[in-house]
Formats: sequence, structure tokens, C-alpha cells
Amino acid sequence: MSFNQSPRRESNQMVFGIRAVMEAIRSGKEIEAVYVQRGLGGGLYLELKKLLAERQITPQQVPIEKLNRITVKNHQGVIGVISQIVYQKIDDLIPIIFEEGRVPLILVLDGVTDVRNMGAIARTAECAGVDAIIIPAKGSAQITPDAIKTSAGALYKIPVCRHENFVQIVKFLQDSGLQLVCCTEKTENSIYDVDYTVPTAIIMGSEESGIRPELIRVSEHLAKIPMFGEIESLNVSVSSAVIIYEAIRQRNRPL
Amino acid sequence: MSFNQSPRRESNQMVFGIRAVMEAIRSGKEIEAVYVQRGLGGGLYLELKKLLAERQITPQQVPIEKLNRITVKNHQGVIGVISQIVYQKIDDLIPIIFEEGRVPLILVLDGVTDVRNMGAIARTAECAGVDAIIIPAKGSAQITPDAIKTSAGALYKIPVCRHENFVQIVKFLQDSGLQLVCCTEKTENSIYDVDYTVPTAIIMGSEESGIRPELIRVSEHLAKIPMFGEIESLNVSVSSAVIIYEAIRQRNRPL
Repeated sequence: MSFNQSPRRESNQMVFGIRAVMEAIRSGKEIEAVYVQRGLGGGLYLELKKLLAERQITPQQVPIEKLNRITVKNHQGVIGVISQIVYQKIDDLIPIIFEEGRVPLILVLDGVTDVRNMGAIARTAECAGVDAIIIPAKGSAQITPDAIKTSAGALYKIPVCRHENFVQIVKFLQDSGLQLVCCTEKTENSIYDVDYTVPTAIIMGSEESGIRPELIRVSEHLAKIPMFGEIESLNVSVSSAVIIYEAIRQRNRPL
Repeated sequence: MSFNQSPRRESNQMVFGIRAVMEAIRSGKEIEAVYVQRGLGGGLYLELKKLLAERQITPQQVPIEKLNRITVKNHQGVIGVISQIVYQKIDDLIPIIFEEGRVPLILVLDGVTDVRNMGAIARTAECAGVDAIIIPAKGSAQITPDAIKTSAGALYKIPVCRHENFVQIVKFLQDSGLQLVCCTEKTENSIYDVDYTVPTAIIMGSEESGIRPELIRVSEHLAKIPMFGEIESLNVSVSSAVIIYEAIRQRNRPL
């Protein structure tokens, strides 16, 4: 693939204080998260706020105790977390995939919150040749060192796209000619009834609440993994593997 | 299923001392492991040794430091671990499955050593309706509380069979009319080229060294999961899910 990433950092990097965070952003560092002490004000903070808005980074308001737990350093009410990986933009990738003559297979993770699940899914997706993973800017597991370790390094290999407006991104996928397949229990259709040989985005939901209704509503297919036991609950990493590999099977079967 | 188990214990139970371990065995408790201090001797120990041999339990010789780390109680050189679940015998189960008019689908785990992988695989197997899991008495992850937690309780539901002589048990499966399918990278055959609608045992290898050569040698099929990325390494729990669900797909597809 032409848009792979190479390993960059091995541990979670943080910067402390308003000026340091602004400096990191301006120097082009990828920002995973910005924690801001609840109620923080002042001219310098307003400057940071403006910069964050420009770069479409939503700061998370937290009690000062959370900041104090993260560091004993003088954080001045602001801590920035530098990303482990370079996020990409799905709008850049889709045209490249089509130009390379491939049929896009995209994995959309709508709020997977466990970093180990995130890592495990990335590992499977990379092995299967999935073109990219899309995650939301909010409500998703971060790409932590643990996630990268669980991914066996796959998170350095497979493009990860993080987008603020998730519903809009999914619309973009449809406008680009991709069908949306939601892997959900809320249907009678089986994952084996769907044709994945056309451009496809597979949507997986969060461990707790599944896929958000707005995405379910606009998707072409809802598909469930058949179950025959008593516990009726697959891990999201396993569900992802089963549906991804069904797509791979179809795409590689003899004519 | 007619041979399900109900939850029994929530934490790892241990018994300390030769007499206590003998008492546990004689009272019919299922023994997960017996740790014996290296170089232990004496008449009472010989009695225990004889009892262990009778019940086909192989004690593990360990340095005294290991025993001291496990407990501060007076262990007298011997610690027994009571099983979390009641193991079953595959020779009992196979006839029942055939009698119930079902086509056996058995999962053989040849030395999966990580308890979380063990739990995750059991969870998938239970959901998919796999009839039983077979593990070796030695060199396998134990069914610890962590394994049970990761399995979402599946280890209480799906029959787990633990056998001392693994090669012989696999031979028994073949004699009972099951084909053996090894999921391994050491082949050009794809998992999608195998017919799983006949009685089948799927064999998965350990995280480190894969499936032992004796099993590879006697199996009817070697089958690999196709990979298209760079890292070329799937987690054993994910591999298990992919091949199990290929079997499930074939068994449930419309005629």
C-alpha cells in the first residue's frame, strides 16, 4: 500500500501547560487529546481555544484532580497527549484505492472503547488487507501504547482515520460508491446474505451500546452473525474478524 | 445440550499439604494441578504419588520458592489446585452427539497457553455451537477465574475435555469418523477449500509453536487463513473464530 506509516514512538507522549500544547499543535504534532481543567479562563487559554477550534480538536473538560493524577508537573490546567500514530483522512484514501484499481474494504469502528479490542481489531484488519479503519474523534479508545502492542504493530501499518463528524463521513463513503454494512444483532439478515465483492464499509458498534441509530438508519445492510449457544455474546474483536473474513472469502473465491 | 455444566466456584480453590490433597482427590474433587516440592520424599508422599498415578494426574515438580509464593500457609511441599469446572470425557460425548442426530464439530486446542486466549476461544466456540473443546492435560492454559471471566461464562456452558494422551484422543476422534483439520500456516490450502459439513475436529496450535508435528502428520487437512497484509500474524482467538465460523457458514447455508 502506498500510504503506510512507519513506527514513530513507543510510549505515550504528553505536553504540559498552555504554551507547550500550543507549540506542539503549531509544530504539526498529531494530537490525540487535550485535557483542560474545568472552569479555566484567561487570555492565553482563549488563544489555545481558538487554535483548537481551527484544527478541529475538541478539548475535554476535566476536574483538576484528573490532571493532577496524570502528572506531578506544573500543568497550568492543560495537558496535551501526542498521538502514537499519524492519522489519515479517509477522503484522501478512497480516491487512491480506486485509482489503484482495488475495491475498497473499509472498517468503521463506531465507538470501540477498549484499547485491547481496538488493537486486536487492527491486527485482524491489517492481516486481512482491509484498506483503512475509521474511528470517531470522540468516544473511541485512544491509540495507546497498549493498543499498539495488542495490534502486534498493525496500528503502524494500517491507515487509521479519525473524524469529528462521523455521520458526515459515512455519507461521504456512500457518495463515493461504498455500501454500508452494519454488523448488528438487530436484524434477521445474516452476514452470509450480503455481497461484499462491491466497494464496502463494514460498521462495528461499541462494546456497550452497539452502532448509533443514525448509522443504522442510513446503511444499506444490517447483518448479524448467527449464534447457536446460550451466552449469545461475541467479543467485538471476534465479530469483526468473522465478518471481515467473510468479505475476504467472497472476494477471493474461485470464479 | 444435555451435558451442560452449571456455575460452581468463583475463585481459584487450593488445598495445602499431602493429606489435604489426597482427601480432595478421594472425595471426588476435580484437580486442575498438583505442585510438589522438588526432591520431596517420605512414606506419605509415596502414598500421594500412587494415588495421583491411579487417577492419571501428573504432579508438577517445582522449587519450594514457587510453593512459598503461592501461600504463606504450611503446605508441607504439596499444593493442589481444584478445578473451576468439571472436565468431561470426549469418549462419552461423541456417542451422545451422534445419537442426538447432530454432526460433531469439535475444537482441539493443542497447547493454547494464554488464559485470556483460552477464555476468548471458549466464548466464540459456545456462541457458534461447537460441541466440545479438547485440551491437553499438560502444556495448556488452566481454566482460571480469569479464563472464565474472559469467556463471559462460556467455560461453564461448553463441555471442556482434558486428556493426558493427546495423540491417542485424536486417533479416537478419527476412529469415530471425524476428519481432522489443522489450522496452520504450513500449507498452501485455504480454510475455504475444506468441507466442514461432515463430522469434524478443528485443531488449533499454541501461540508459540503451533500444532505438534504428530497431529499435523495424521490430519486429513491442513488449512491456512489467507492473509494479505504485512504483519501476517493473527491472534489464535481470532484464527479460531474465523475457521469455526467458516464451518458454521457451510453447515447453515441454503441448499
